[in-house]
Amino acid sequence: MIKEIFNNKKREVETELGFGTKNYHSSVRFLNRDGSLNIKRKIANRYAGFDIYHWLITTSWTRFITLVLCGYVFINTLFAIVYYVIGADKFGGLKMSDGIDDFLQLFFFSAQTLTTVGYGHIYPNHTIISSIAAIESMFGLLGFALATGILYGRFSRPKADIEYSNDAVIAPYQGMTGFMFRLGNKGQYELIENECELSVTINNKETKKREFHNLELERKRINYLAFSWTIVHPIDERSPLFGVTEKELLDGDAEFIVAIKSINDTISQPVFSRISYKANEVVWNAKFTPIKQIPNKDGSISIDMRDIHLIDRL
Amino acid sequence: MIKEIFNNKKREVETELGFGTKNYHSSVRFLNRDGSLNIKRKIANRYAGFDIYHWLITTSWTRFITLVLCGYVFINTLFAIVYYVIGADKFGGLKMSDGIDDFLQLFFFSAQTLTTVGYGHIYPNHTIISSIAAIESMFGLLGFALATGILYGRFSRPKADIEYSNDAVIAPYQGMTGFMFRLGNKGQYELIENECELSVTINNKETKKREFHNLELERKRINYLAFSWTIVHPIDERSPLFGVTEKELLDGDAEFIVAIKSINDTISQPVFSRISYKANEVVWNAKFTPIKQIPNKDGSISIDMRDIHLIDRL
Amino acid sequence: MIKEIFNNKKREVETELGFGTKNYHSSVRFLNRDGSLNIKRKIANRYAGFDIYHWLITTSWTRFITLVLCGYVFINTLFAIVYYVIGADKFGGLKMSDGIDDFLQLFFFSAQTLTTVGYGHIYPNHTIISSIAAIESMFGLLGFALATGILYGRFSRPKADIEYSNDAVIAPYQGMTGFMFRLGNKGQYELIENECELSVTINNKETKKREFHNLELERKRINYLAFSWTIVHPIDERSPLFGVTEKELLDGDAEFIVAIKSINDTISQPVFSRISYKANEVVWNAKFTPIKQIPNKDGSISIDMRDIHLIDRL
Amino acid sequence: MIKEIFNNKKREVETELGFGTKNYHSSVRFLNRDGSLNIKRKIANRYAGFDIYHWLITTSWTRFITLVLCGYVFINTLFAIVYYVIGADKFGGLKMSDGIDDFLQLFFFSAQTLTTVGYGHIYPNHTIISSIAAIESMFGLLGFALATGILYGRFSRPKADIEYSNDAVIAPYQGMTGFMFRLGNKGQYELIENECELSVTINNKETKKREFHNLELERKRINYLAFSWTIVHPIDERSPLFGVTEKELLDGDAEFIVAIKSINDTISQPVFSRISYKANEVVWNAKFTPIKQIPNKDGSISIDMRDIHLIDRL
Repeated sequence: MIKEIFNNKKREVETELGFGTKNYHSSVRFLNRDGSLNIKRKIANRYAGFDIYHWLITTSWTRFITLVLCGYVFINTLFAIVYYVIGADKFGGLKMSDGIDDFLQLFFFSAQTLTTVGYGHIYPNHTIISSIAAIESMFGLLGFALATGILYGRFSRPKADIEYSNDAVIAPYQGMTGFMFRLGNKGQYELIENECELSVTINNKETKKREFHNLELERKRINYLAFSWTIVHPIDERSPLFGVTEKELLDGDAEFIVAIKSINDTISQPVFSRISYKANEVVWNAKFTPIKQIPNKDGSISIDMRDIHLIDRL
Repeated sequence: MIKEIFNNKKREVETELGFGTKNYHSSVRFLNRDGSLNIKRKIANRYAGFDIYHWLITTSWTRFITLVLCGYVFINTLFAIVYYVIGADKFGGLKMSDGIDDFLQLFFFSAQTLTTVGYGHIYPNHTIISSIAAIESMFGLLGFALATGILYGRFSRPKADIEYSNDAVIAPYQGMTGFMFRLGNKGQYELIENECELSVTINNKETKKREFHNLELERKRINYLAFSWTIVHPIDERSPLFGVTEKELLDGDAEFIVAIKSINDTISQPVFSRISYKANEVVWNAKFTPIKQIPNKDGSISIDMRDIHLIDRL
Repeated sequence: MIKEIFNNKKREVETELGFGTKNYHSSVRFLNRDGSLNIKRKIANRYAGFDIYHWLITTSWTRFITLVLCGYVFINTLFAIVYYVIGADKFGGLKMSDGIDDFLQLFFFSAQTLTTVGYGHIYPNHTIISSIAAIESMFGLLGFALATGILYGRFSRPKADIEYSNDAVIAPYQGMTGFMFRLGNKGQYELIENECELSVTINNKETKKREFHNLELERKRINYLAFSWTIVHPIDERSPLFGVTEKELLDGDAEFIVAIKSINDTISQPVFSRISYKANEVVWNAKFTPIKQIPNKDGSISIDMRDIHLIDRL
Repeated sequence: MIKEIFNNKKREVETELGFGTKNYHSSVRFLNRDGSLNIKRKIANRYAGFDIYHWLITTSWTRFITLVLCGYVFINTLFAIVYYVIGADKFGGLKMSDGIDDFLQLFFFSAQTLTTVGYGHIYPNHTIISSIAAIESMFGLLGFALATGILYGRFSRPKADIEYSNDAVIAPYQGMTGFMFRLGNKGQYELIENECELSVTINNKETKKREFHNLELERKRINYLAFSWTIVHPIDERSPLFGVTEKELLDGDAEFIVAIKSINDTISQPVFSRISYKANEVVWNAKFTPIKQIPNKDGSISIDMRDIHLIDRL
């Protein structure tokens, strides 16, 4: 199995990723393919740690828009009920008819108040109604501005749209063997000052512990993510993967954990991206197909990001 | 007492935290348990240094909402008084009655102007009223947008929801002794690139000064705060705590000062967290109970953050 | 040609910029003069990688304002059609006349609803109209707030207004030869903690590859960009440009790639700036004309940023 | 004069601040006391480099509020003129009287449209008026949201409220001599990870150049700005100030340039602060009066920030 060549600094290697060494069982994935941690943390009060802002910023667009629409209808229904109970006769301009029509008119009065449209063909004609409408319009202003703040936060959230190759490969590389994967920028932002960290986690049959090892890279940093970036860990004598076979990787439930840090050039902010490759997502004796760089007539160069995934079996 | 092993670089060690060396008396706590500094700074003009934005961002939700509501009522009252003094007869659509009812109608006219609802069943019918209403609606727009800006600032403020173990422990550790405490992420944000700095401050009876010492850590940095993180200062010959007894820590009014720096992955921003342990919050001859990692059916792993605090006395 | 003095660390030098080594043809420019990458990346789905926020933030003012105006007219037309189809008779206050006039009145009712002005001389007098108007006012609020968020994002985007000299020069410098260019801050922000990285890319006739080399700088960092900054790469024995002639630079299609990182002092954020000089933008045997520093009566010093470009041929 | 002890790395020392070496005349101040650069940069087009956002964020509150108010009046006047020229008879609800009153009514109609209050007692009754009002309300929404964005930007701008001692001192210090100044945090934000850089600029009579020298500090960094921080440059053999007299400092027009970098803990952002001390702001043979730390009953410690400036002449 993996050689304990880092033996003299073993304490440091074991836990530096923060996943601990206790998960010695055969099937675990720490990082999902989308980069999220595959871990659930229970807390004392089920709601205490719930962060509404975090949820609103990270949830899907479908859920977010549904929530805003439902909230809008819900709040207007609530106020309409209050207005209805107090009395539709306390409004000016409201043509009294049956209960349902009255309620609908009050519902739309509420909507006109909440959004501060305030046409005024229906208007509060009593102190208590005026008070409630005054509160509703205030909360309408605060609520809508908050909703758009979150909407804008969703749009402007720093992100790294990185396309990772579907598989990693282990193959001969410059006279030795290398663990390689490939990535590219599929977003419209330029990503600069890109840095990569690669680790592997694997079950050690002898110590009955899950071990973590940093994997040294041929190159840790590139200035521009212009085309693609093939990240190479040379499997030489210094590598914990030296002499490891495909079967040993699979048996040890190996997971390669990738962390990328870049600067999003448009908004001048750091962005982070993660992925992991499980042992069965590593192809042995294959290499990445070179990505075609096609010069355009205007002097620029085109590449096709779909080529990122192409591998040639040797 | 604490050995002066850092003697040759003593000048550097003494004050690098920024708390000075003058507090040589028995009962002082520099950092509160919530991480705030236990220090009050007077300035020349009592109000000169008061930063309204800082207060609005950091005050409790109860206070913030109360302030917004009271401010809303106060401003409307103010404008209602102005309108009332100028004359309720200068409004169109206002049914004149007794003074109180007139005043209330003007109060709600003000609210409808401030929030820009503007139903229009009451409207300014005189140049001076129109002028004041024009100013009110302008300040209404600016004020409400500012209020929601602050509201959004409160929601989106970068934070690290770190749960620290209630107590630190000093116990045998890997063949020697260690000072240890434990922490975990109780928020919904992932915290990455976590770094820790640990210092101790203690009264030195000989020099009659309060001394500060950095404590070296077994591991200063972990990539993910996935489960819990036990931070260990090995008490070996190089440690200023080498040979110190429990009584000496208590007599010296020792305080262990912790600073954590992480990256909040959702918003890609650094977040800071602090805590301190006083000598009486350090348990001797105890170790932290391992936190159970329960594999779920979906392949993820669950932990219970309440286990962070559990210690086993040896 | 360029000496392989970095031979022992050749692997590192080749690709550290992220442009790869494959572009061995005579006419390529990686970085445009405005600092944008001259590369087009195709992705699987033509629209998948399109980031509307990125486009809205970075597009020209003319396009942005045109888009907002057209969007405003388009959405109002859309809603006016819906209102017209449902029936102009379902509105209160609308003076029915011919179709075109009705449509225009509904168009302006839509505008008054979308902007939440809501004069109310025309108002919805039917449940279905009220429903649509309620939705329109909600989307109006969200849409306008989003538009102003983006507007503000455009205004407040961190930027470095750096003026680069039109040409670089290669000339005798302090007893040897130097590659030099000059820059200055033409914005109103102060730029502090400025750092520069310089690279050259050139075709190597022997290896038939495009090579990349870091160029060491006499000074990598200055605290203030107060006046101008002349960046110097000394062409000594350690330089890959040592002994290279003007013709060789031109034949090798050389491109000098400049990356500047600064802190924008007003907003306390890092800002990035890039430029490249092609071989034909390098003037040989010339030096930059010193920039006049004119002391003002008030004790301050004036400089003229247009002097940045001035060179004296030797 | 100042010893050229950095002679072997002289090129580096000369210009690393970015102020150049040409200002060899007797009266120049690079940094004003408030930390702004005392330099005016002319650019090609007088307005090209003018950054309205920068101005709006950094100008005084008085100017900002005046601008907003005047802009509001100006825009309403402009629209009122347009409405008046087109014809007051094209409005519904407007009681026609003399020209001035008509104009005022149109002015307030404009204000009600711009702020989207839209009472509706006056309303557009003609297509062309409706069109202009539709445009006005749109620009009103965008404009006010932008104004409040800037308002919020002013409130939330990262800042370091650092109080610097009025004077620096040169005095005996720990067996040698030191250049010292003192600072403290007078704001409500906690400032953490504080770093200081100190330089001196002085005219060199022999080389007829203005020289710049970094001054090494006893301590460059403190974690907390809890009380005050006395920054010390030890004037030993390695210091360019070694052996320099008070008269030489004054004759050489010396300026000590201070740059502080901190993290504002409330908003988790870096903040920068600068100051300079001219030779006549350096007191010889004086030391800073220790700042009293008064323990409060609640266990906290009080200090008076006004004590920062106190010095005792020796």
